[in-house]
Amino acid sequence: MKTVEDYMISIPDFPKEGIIFRDVTGVLDNADGLHLAIDELQKRLDGIEFDLVAGAEARGFIFGMPIAYNLHKPFVPVRKKGKLPRETVTKEYALEYGTAAIEIHKDSIKPGQRVVLVDDLLATGGTLKAAAQLIEELGGEVVKILVLIDLVDLGGRAVLDGYDVDTVITYHGE
Amino acid sequence: MKTVEDYMISIPDFPKEGIIFRDVTGVLDNADGLHLAIDELQKRLDGIEFDLVAGAEARGFIFGMPIAYNLHKPFVPVRKKGKLPRETVTKEYALEYGTAAIEIHKDSIKPGQRVVLVDDLLATGGTLKAAAQLIEELGGEVVKILVLIDLVDLGGRAVLDGYDVDTVITYHGE
Repeated sequence: MKTVEDYMISIPDFPKEGIIFRDVTGVLDNADGLHLAIDELQKRLDGIEFDLVAGAEARGFIFGMPIAYNLHKPFVPVRKKGKLPRETVTKEYALEYGTAAIEIHKDSIKPGQRVVLVDDLLATGGTLKAAAQLIEELGGEVVKILVLIDLVDLGGRAVLDGYDVDTVITYHGE
Repeated sequence: MKTVEDYMISIPDFPKEGIIFRDVTGVLDNADGLHLAIDELQKRLDGIEFDLVAGAEARGFIFGMPIAYNLHKPFVPVRKKGKLPRETVTKEYALEYGTAAIEIHKDSIKPGQRVVLVDDLLATGGTLKAAAQLIEELGGEVVKILVLIDLVDLGGRAVLDGYDVDTVITYHGE
């Protein structure tokens, strides 16, 4: 039986020497890999009551949408600033160099709604933390942060302390 | 019976006076709307033999991925330049002001493979045309361009002349 990890492509010394780039497109390039990745993520929602799925641009869309469809939930796109046409809440957060800002439509999450936040990769956790805070600003509750790949050494889990974080593949030692 | 169009949100005079912005997030915000949109797109693939689904960053991911999952096909993300880690083919295309460039991994499409290209919106058709040309550059055949919303007056269908274009919602008269 193949695991999701078998479909991953690891690229040594990219983008710079000593870094191993974990490339999720190897999973998407194979119908069995794609199916397995979604099923493995979805399995981690068994028995969890929730109202909607959220995912951050752009790869959060890739993994969040099939889950929303399969479990018959709405999907809330967390987008880069300036892409959403209606009234939004915005969060700025730090990157390695400079800052980024993400947004959610104000009316897409109602107070008390239970949200599952999906992404492909947990690295420093900056985007996921900002997305979780936006959901909470609208009165939503983040009941699960569901991520395919956990780059453990980048410390994302500490940044997301207090959240229920669940991951499928774990990589140590970059 | 509701149609996908019933879930659409139209925003008058956005981004400027005289333009009606067709906002697809209203469809995603509702579990029934989301399900119906995917089902309506997918229905248009009945009886069509194909090998993989491709979708352009970012909203092509939203509608392409559930279809890839449901029909057990790989998904090829067409990404903005600089996001894909392995060897790519690149296409530059004109925007209203300036140019943009998109990329596909070279090894994600093999000669002779039949590709369904999915997006949310057909406007001028520039991105879809560039994506189709990239697929063909790798030897793939675009057997269907599947789009949720067709903004007829922007002339995208003429730009995509020669392709089998199928859309779910049609808006006239902006």
